[in-house]
Amino acid sequence: MTSETKRAALIIIGNEILSGRTLDKNTQHIGQKMGEQGVPLSEVRVVPDIEHKIIETVNTLREEYDYVFTTGGIGPTHDDITASCIAKAFEREFVRNEAAFAILEDYYKDDEFTPARQRMTMMPEGVELIPNPVSGAPGFKIENVYVMAGVPRIMQGMLDHILKTMEHGKTISSKTLLAQLPESKLAEAVGDIQERNTDVELGSYPGYRNGLLWTSIVVRSTDEARLEEVANEVEALIEKLTLQNNTQSKD
Amino acid sequence: MTSETKRAALIIIGNEILSGRTLDKNTQHIGQKMGEQGVPLSEVRVVPDIEHKIIETVNTLREEYDYVFTTGGIGPTHDDITASCIAKAFEREFVRNEAAFAILEDYYKDDEFTPARQRMTMMPEGVELIPNPVSGAPGFKIENVYVMAGVPRIMQGMLDHILKTMEHGKTISSKTLLAQLPESKLAEAVGDIQERNTDVELGSYPGYRNGLLWTSIVVRSTDEARLEEVANEVEALIEKLTLQNNTQSKD
Repeated sequence: MTSETKRAALIIIGNEILSGRTLDKNTQHIGQKMGEQGVPLSEVRVVPDIEHKIIETVNTLREEYDYVFTTGGIGPTHDDITASCIAKAFEREFVRNEAAFAILEDYYKDDEFTPARQRMTMMPEGVELIPNPVSGAPGFKIENVYVMAGVPRIMQGMLDHILKTMEHGKTISSKTLLAQLPESKLAEAVGDIQERNTDVELGSYPGYRNGLLWTSIVVRSTDEARLEEVANEVEALIEKLTLQNNTQSKD
Repeated sequence: MTSETKRAALIIIGNEILSGRTLDKNTQHIGQKMGEQGVPLSEVRVVPDIEHKIIETVNTLREEYDYVFTTGGIGPTHDDITASCIAKAFEREFVRNEAAFAILEDYYKDDEFTPARQRMTMMPEGVELIPNPVSGAPGFKIENVYVMAGVPRIMQGMLDHILKTMEHGKTISSKTLLAQLPESKLAEAVGDIQERNTDVELGSYPGYRNGLLWTSIVVRSTDEARLEEVANEVEALIEKLTLQNNTQSKD
């Protein structure tokens, strides 16, 4: 990866993730999608529904990263405070977004467009809307910050739209090589390969499968040719060490 | 919750979570356990295997929170840099921990205690070990920071040990009330109840079940009696609004 690679961060807003009530699946989805986009997800913060904490986190990360996503806290209830916090973070007025209002007026029957739902059209001044293909109420973009719903299905719909509007970096490709060896038998040699190939990222992940210790070596790079080269070297190493290991076992 | 409530934070160290290769389940487990312990998990940060980022995050959070957990990056491979980063964060020497060395010498057969595995006994000077009931290699505690493995089964074993040594806050109890209503129909009235009961935390979570819109209202408090009172009020509200809603539907 070059130093020109753009990077993204994610802020997950919600007590329900911190209390363990809900398992967060948005990190994994956004991580995968941003890898494909060539804009790696480089940090995630999960914060509670507390105003000063949200404001502080948004302001820190929007300085540090090229793109910041937030998920959660834009529904109709009292604990949905994300939009007003974003307005405060950017020191903008918190106003009714007329375009969002028109969308929801159209989406709901007259008597269904309750005051609570109207609250979902309150946003910082001067934002761009992010369409919600699932349940009407849009998210919004303000400078480099994308404010999305927390419900995975809705978030995914919003993200698909965002990705089409976003600059494409070099796609990060990866290749996973499986070794039927404990991680420690590979560690030194894989470390050597990493040292000699600093433009490619090598990860080592232990696991169990069919009662045996396996290790996955993941090779990641924006350069397909270099990825192949290094993956081939890892593959040869695995073959050699597996053979050695089996021979020793038979001693 | 009083201002004396102790709070915990979690740092997840690992590119595999950020790239979406692995779904993080440690947040949910730690969130639940710390809720039971009465020391709520109040922030989570996921950071990549980058030295300065790990050091900076550890130093920020150990100032801000009473307890900090880290998961990941303490295995035998080149990308396992957590222990050396923690040593740097605390400005301590990075040395072989003789007690950890003795544990692993005992755990592995002679020829299995490879240099890579010996690397797992390198730790900051003067730490307390955290036993690993699953796979030998211990974690460690340094001041208010607990360094654990990333593999969920191992992390859970380590956490069970830690919780026995940790101060117990007032347990946070919760009660979930289900309403067969969209969130927006409950929003205003639940917001009112929250405003009148600031010592109890109310969360509202939309969901689908059997093709119908449901809302879960979660009531959380360290005070069982207050929890019951507020939960009863929410329950009465749900009954009233459901009745109204059904009557309207029949109009």
